[in-house]
Amino acid sequence: MTNGIETSQAHEVPVDVRRMRVGCEFVHIAAVDTPTVFQVEAQDAQPISVIKQEWSVEPQLRVRRYTDLYGNRCARVVLPAGRSVLRYDALLLVPDAAEDADESARELLPDELPDDVLLYTLPSRYCLPDMLGDEAWSRFGPMPTGYRRVQAICDHVNSHLTFQYGSSGSWSTAVDVNASGYGVCRDFTHLAISFCRALNIPARYVFGYLPDMDVPADPAPMDFAAWMEVWLGDRWWTFDPRNNARRKGRAVIGHGRDASDVAMVTTFGAPLLESMTVLAQEEPA
Amino acid sequence: MTNGIETSQAHEVPVDVRRMRVGCEFVHIAAVDTPTVFQVEAQDAQPISVIKQEWSVEPQLRVRRYTDLYGNRCARVVLPAGRSVLRYDALLLVPDAAEDADESARELLPDELPDDVLLYTLPSRYCLPDMLGDEAWSRFGPMPTGYRRVQAICDHVNSHLTFQYGSSGSWSTAVDVNASGYGVCRDFTHLAISFCRALNIPARYVFGYLPDMDVPADPAPMDFAAWMEVWLGDRWWTFDPRNNARRKGRAVIGHGRDASDVAMVTTFGAPLLESMTVLAQEEPA
Amino acid sequence: MTNGIETSQAHEVPVDVRRMRVGCEFVHIAAVDTPTVFQVEAQDAQPISVIKQEWSVEPQLRVRRYTDLYGNRCARVVLPAGRSVLRYDALLLVPDAAEDADESARELLPDELPDDVLLYTLPSRYCLPDMLGDEAWSRFGPMPTGYRRVQAICDHVNSHLTFQYGSSGSWSTAVDVNASGYGVCRDFTHLAISFCRALNIPARYVFGYLPDMDVPADPAPMDFAAWMEVWLGDRWWTFDPRNNARRKGRAVIGHGRDASDVAMVTTFGAPLLESMTVLAQEEPA
Amino acid sequence: MTNGIETSQAHEVPVDVRRMRVGCEFVHIAAVDTPTVFQVEAQDAQPISVIKQEWSVEPQLRVRRYTDLYGNRCARVVLPAGRSVLRYDALLLVPDAAEDADESARELLPDELPDDVLLYTLPSRYCLPDMLGDEAWSRFGPMPTGYRRVQAICDHVNSHLTFQYGSSGSWSTAVDVNASGYGVCRDFTHLAISFCRALNIPARYVFGYLPDMDVPADPAPMDFAAWMEVWLGDRWWTFDPRNNARRKGRAVIGHGRDASDVAMVTTFGAPLLESMTVLAQEEPA
Repeated sequence: MTNGIETSQAHEVPVDVRRMRVGCEFVHIAAVDTPTVFQVEAQDAQPISVIKQEWSVEPQLRVRRYTDLYGNRCARVVLPAGRSVLRYDALLLVPDAAEDADESARELLPDELPDDVLLYTLPSRYCLPDMLGDEAWSRFGPMPTGYRRVQAICDHVNSHLTFQYGSSGSWSTAVDVNASGYGVCRDFTHLAISFCRALNIPARYVFGYLPDMDVPADPAPMDFAAWMEVWLGDRWWTFDPRNNARRKGRAVIGHGRDASDVAMVTTFGAPLLESMTVLAQEEPA
Repeated sequence: MTNGIETSQAHEVPVDVRRMRVGCEFVHIAAVDTPTVFQVEAQDAQPISVIKQEWSVEPQLRVRRYTDLYGNRCARVVLPAGRSVLRYDALLLVPDAAEDADESARELLPDELPDDVLLYTLPSRYCLPDMLGDEAWSRFGPMPTGYRRVQAICDHVNSHLTFQYGSSGSWSTAVDVNASGYGVCRDFTHLAISFCRALNIPARYVFGYLPDMDVPADPAPMDFAAWMEVWLGDRWWTFDPRNNARRKGRAVIGHGRDASDVAMVTTFGAPLLESMTVLAQEEPA
Repeated sequence: MTNGIETSQAHEVPVDVRRMRVGCEFVHIAAVDTPTVFQVEAQDAQPISVIKQEWSVEPQLRVRRYTDLYGNRCARVVLPAGRSVLRYDALLLVPDAAEDADESARELLPDELPDDVLLYTLPSRYCLPDMLGDEAWSRFGPMPTGYRRVQAICDHVNSHLTFQYGSSGSWSTAVDVNASGYGVCRDFTHLAISFCRALNIPARYVFGYLPDMDVPADPAPMDFAAWMEVWLGDRWWTFDPRNNARRKGRAVIGHGRDASDVAMVTTFGAPLLESMTVLAQEEPA
Repeated sequence: MTNGIETSQAHEVPVDVRRMRVGCEFVHIAAVDTPTVFQVEAQDAQPISVIKQEWSVEPQLRVRRYTDLYGNRCARVVLPAGRSVLRYDALLLVPDAAEDADESARELLPDELPDDVLLYTLPSRYCLPDMLGDEAWSRFGPMPTGYRRVQAICDHVNSHLTFQYGSSGSWSTAVDVNASGYGVCRDFTHLAISFCRALNIPARYVFGYLPDMDVPADPAPMDFAAWMEVWLGDRWWTFDPRNNARRKGRAVIGHGRDASDVAMVTTFGAPLLESMTVLAQEEPA
């Protein structure tokens, strides 16, 4: 349909765009057919455009997608008995611009929060503001409120926890890792989220791809990443308690209350994960 | 996350799967930057899996996707002043199986219809059950109800209308084409939908790709296709008043009340469409 | 659950609140049981609070509510053979404040419009921007854009059409009433919406209760009212082409693309409507 | 709008309907204005019709409703400094029929579960299938699957836990109460849900009003109630691990993953709850 009417068009500020390739590969060995849900597709959400994506599955399998309660895209696959390889690959356009930040972004009073954001002030499986409330208020309560207070929470979590693979497990809550002092990116995120929520600041968990664009490449194998978004003023702002830095090229897979809402793979059975490879890197134009 | 529990798994009836390539290319020449919405992505919805899709746009442009009121995927692009080429390409897995049909599927009484289906009994921009009600009741009212009555509507529309490009326009309603006797696939569909709705049978418009799988190839250039879905029993059933045949490989782009809800391209301005090419064909494995 | 943390609370600007009673009564006589959908409940949506509502139906009938595609509340009732009385009654709190207006609110370029607002630039059953585009552009195209242009559209429609019950019917489009020069409030609204959409200004139809608060009481029996909302800047603004005045106490029942989306009563059958009474008036505190 | 067409109407099986009054009253004393969310409105959802409801708040306050992620209705109120009384009262029609049960309802394989039900197989704040999986499989794994297995879970929980007010708190998980052996209705429910989910049976938490219809009246003051719904076959089925009986007149307020999703009151602050009264009883016709 053509509305058929000429309109003048404001020119957007031109933004340099870079190309990024993200993807992953899972090799499973299953004793029996195993229903599985994958959450690995990069979201086509501003400011990122997904211009190409491809699934390949060996042996050939049906991939059934659906959208969950949070608007995330999920893919259901029944892994067959035996060995299976599932590969996801996408090409993205990402703006070559620093991540947004605004030190003057303010905390809202609870009564001012939008209805659909209230959820993110409550406890969830791994984020326990109720049990970390005393610490949150004594540490961060007296500080000036707003963006800088959230940054202070990130600074604290980033220095309090030591990153160590294997130090935590699928059962570890924010309380557990706060006590142990060790965790992986999801734990850093759960703890920072818990402190925010304890202060009535809405915070949600984000899971995605994070390339080493314009930062020294990490020698470790690439992995999925977790960070958080915090509601200040009239929007969500990205904070990353693990890296504690603004980065380029974050590609969101999904968001939710905590890691239980955005699992890269949920298996209804016990297949062996022989290998997992993650890719997130700039692609030459 | 691993639920960690083995479950036995029912084996699905194995279905042969074929590979289908669908896509389109639009070449526009615009005097000024022109905001445009495209609805051309094949839906990843049962029984079809989209295993690969790719957008390419020259010059390089942002493609912003969103989901509309009906759950359809739309892509917003600002066509730049000058010449632009937008290409969409996807690879699908489609079952090698006849389209469902069930001659015993029954019409529901209005009180039995699910809430979200009621909408599709009402008039819309192009489907005018209110104005075609007398004809609908005199022609189809006395017939046995159910699947066969809907088939009778398709048979009638298929023989009453003569397919002819250019015979109708973006303003033509079901009433217009019923009077003229000519139309394209969208008009066949609008008229059949109007008759169904007049009888309180929910019917919705579907827009998509329709390959010539296992049927004699149409010598005309490939085009997008329109057909309808009708609610009988507890689900939507596909009917195609234009081809009036069950087909393989229908790939849905979107559905809605009529063509105004699923437009392949909506331009806010008046660019020249230099060419449009549509592709839908089997892909050798 | 208690978050258990004291927060200071910004004091809202105190707003005087008035109490308003709205409701309606339908008396039907049906030959057979007749499925019917009513859209008459006042929405509890800012700035209005519904503090009491009551349905009474004689004989006693089930009232099944659901929410439609637009978020409107609908009630399904099967009117029994014979005489039935359905009564809806609600008590609202409404702010004693002038309706918002902002002459500086600007039109957005199509590319700037939020995704979910795009729908309201397109043609629908009764609103035909495609067919009224030439008139829209010649009349309103040269004007300064924004709030004042929309007001000019309302001024024109208000003076061009003469209000007359019975002058139009359930089939009358904006084109029809524009030609005839007569209509009721829904026709005024359809015409103004069509002009807005032709200019790429999103406009939607609103159906509701409109009391005579602080205006001279209309001696005619109270009726439901229709007006429109137009997207300017970052929100919907109320315009009323029929009354062409800012009013207090508008209680929205629902909104949609046009009257076909918000019908006070949709019957799947042909009962006789013996009487309909509408009430909307201030309630002494 | 009148579709204008007579249809014959299947007569529903006549069901005797009884009238039930439900409601609650909260008296708070707050030091400062305190934002609060209440979830106390009875849902108008089959088979229950809400024919009247009324909020009264002293002093007069705005009540702002919204619908949460799960489709539950919530009401936001800012409790003023000082004493406030919030009262909710509703009149319902409920069928005089035994609650549905079907001993032949079967468990689905995970791959057969509808997309939107998968969520209810995962851990949440209070329901920990991951940590109770071993017990679940050793106790209930060898049993025949389906409705009877879920009933066996309820029987076990009902006998394993002793009902005792004050024995658990807002922090108590299913693991905690399983160990302590004591709990209130929410704990019974959390534990039974955890066992179901460990077996990949979707289970969700329900919060509502439960009158003593046709059962010996409980001499204790009326309270809100919690039970669960379990997905078997193609629908949710009600189970009540606390009362372990089929009952009449269950009026759902909301459902979610566990009690953290359906809290009768969430306060952003620390007001004193001076008293809470709950009402759920049959109303003479």
